[in-house]
Amino acid sequence: MFPVMILIDPQLGRNIGNTARAMLNCGLQELRLVRPPLNWLNENTRALSAGADIVLDNAQCFENVESATADLHRLYATTARHRDMVQEVMTPRHFAKTVTPLYQSGQRIGVLFGPEKCGLENDDLGRVKGVIKIPVNPEFSSFNLSQAVLILAYEIFLASSLNDSRESHLNHGNSDLAKKEEVDGFLDQLLDELDKAGYLRPEHKKSIMQRNLRNIFSRIDMTSQEVRTLRGVVSSLVNPNGIFSRPRRRPR
Amino acid sequence: MFPVMILIDPQLGRNIGNTARAMLNCGLQELRLVRPPLNWLNENTRALSAGADIVLDNAQCFENVESATADLHRLYATTARHRDMVQEVMTPRHFAKTVTPLYQSGQRIGVLFGPEKCGLENDDLGRVKGVIKIPVNPEFSSFNLSQAVLILAYEIFLASSLNDSRESHLNHGNSDLAKKEEVDGFLDQLLDELDKAGYLRPEHKKSIMQRNLRNIFSRIDMTSQEVRTLRGVVSSLVNPNGIFSRPRRRPR
Repeated sequence: MFPVMILIDPQLGRNIGNTARAMLNCGLQELRLVRPPLNWLNENTRALSAGADIVLDNAQCFENVESATADLHRLYATTARHRDMVQEVMTPRHFAKTVTPLYQSGQRIGVLFGPEKCGLENDDLGRVKGVIKIPVNPEFSSFNLSQAVLILAYEIFLASSLNDSRESHLNHGNSDLAKKEEVDGFLDQLLDELDKAGYLRPEHKKSIMQRNLRNIFSRIDMTSQEVRTLRGVVSSLVNPNGIFSRPRRRPR
Repeated sequence: MFPVMILIDPQLGRNIGNTARAMLNCGLQELRLVRPPLNWLNENTRALSAGADIVLDNAQCFENVESATADLHRLYATTARHRDMVQEVMTPRHFAKTVTPLYQSGQRIGVLFGPEKCGLENDDLGRVKGVIKIPVNPEFSSFNLSQAVLILAYEIFLASSLNDSRESHLNHGNSDLAKKEEVDGFLDQLLDELDKAGYLRPEHKKSIMQRNLRNIFSRIDMTSQEVRTLRGVVSSLVNPNGIFSRPRRRPR
């Protein structure tokens, strides 16, 4: 299935309508919204979608990014700004070429888009495998939200029909590539243990330290087994020879 | 200079605002409007342009396609539909690669966009060198006008910075490639003479015959000298050994 477009804190219903139209123009149908406006699905939204009801009616709403991305294997984010975070930065075209063989072989891919005015927060950027930077006039770089979605959807649509993308293959089985919820579970465990251990101090640097750690592990493709192994590593470090040294499932 | 975006009979000010923003995002500044709504430059248009005032304030308005394209060397059109006209159909990417070395060496390029609801008329399509077809989901193919402009502007912007497009060169001097007004002048002369000669009959097929003739000559790259030669050919055919057998400048 095509990648999922995920709008975080979208502020305007019209942008959601335009986004739905742009997505369906390019064959994409799966839209997720994190904290959209209460009345986002109104007549104006529908009018601007120009008939892309299948996208609007199936759009899923979430309270946070974590839950919106739990079932995905790989997460990317769009941003126009340079950040100081250590991350792969790619063009929409490179992104599309990279993920096409992945989603065509069953992986679920998601792309995060920040709110209209301020873009994504660093904490969200710390959750992703890589950052997509849309090439833009440096003197007028603020993209409309639905226009940014269109560029991504367009490149995905084009890459899906190019032979070269189908000719590339992953050189490992992907059936057990870890989902984001597994990685998040491990990270929660790790950060929790680090917090208890007094590592995340001083307090005002805590969130940055957490983000940087999330960022490191979000950039790796891990299998479920590898995540379980890491959980076991943390558990056994914290509790050597203890009854909790075997990995536990994260409570749902 | 980057290609010119030409909106024919745009119906909604908001599409013009969104178009100006999308253009400037990609570094394009030259917008032309053929028969826009009277009040097109209103507050809403400006708000949606998000600061792309340089595009809106310099936009030129025209009463017809001929005058809007008179100073251009090459004209292309966007369309989502298949037509029965004999024309090169290309992707936005191919278009961008093709025209980048041309406008970088001084040719003026224009792209026609039809009105929101119905697209371009065949008569306008008959004036162009080639047709650009944006790849789209065949089951949901109606692109928003500003989204269509964005796709073209994005591909132009990308191609402008790619080395391979700069590496390609034209293998003939372009300084005297004919402008559209020169070609139009020749075509006006030709059609006028054909009409007088009774060739364009029956009357109800006249416009189709005219369009098909325009189409043929619009697909050729001609130099100014070649156009003058053709004018001479027509003149001398019509008036053998006459005083008008030498090419005249078209009255301005």
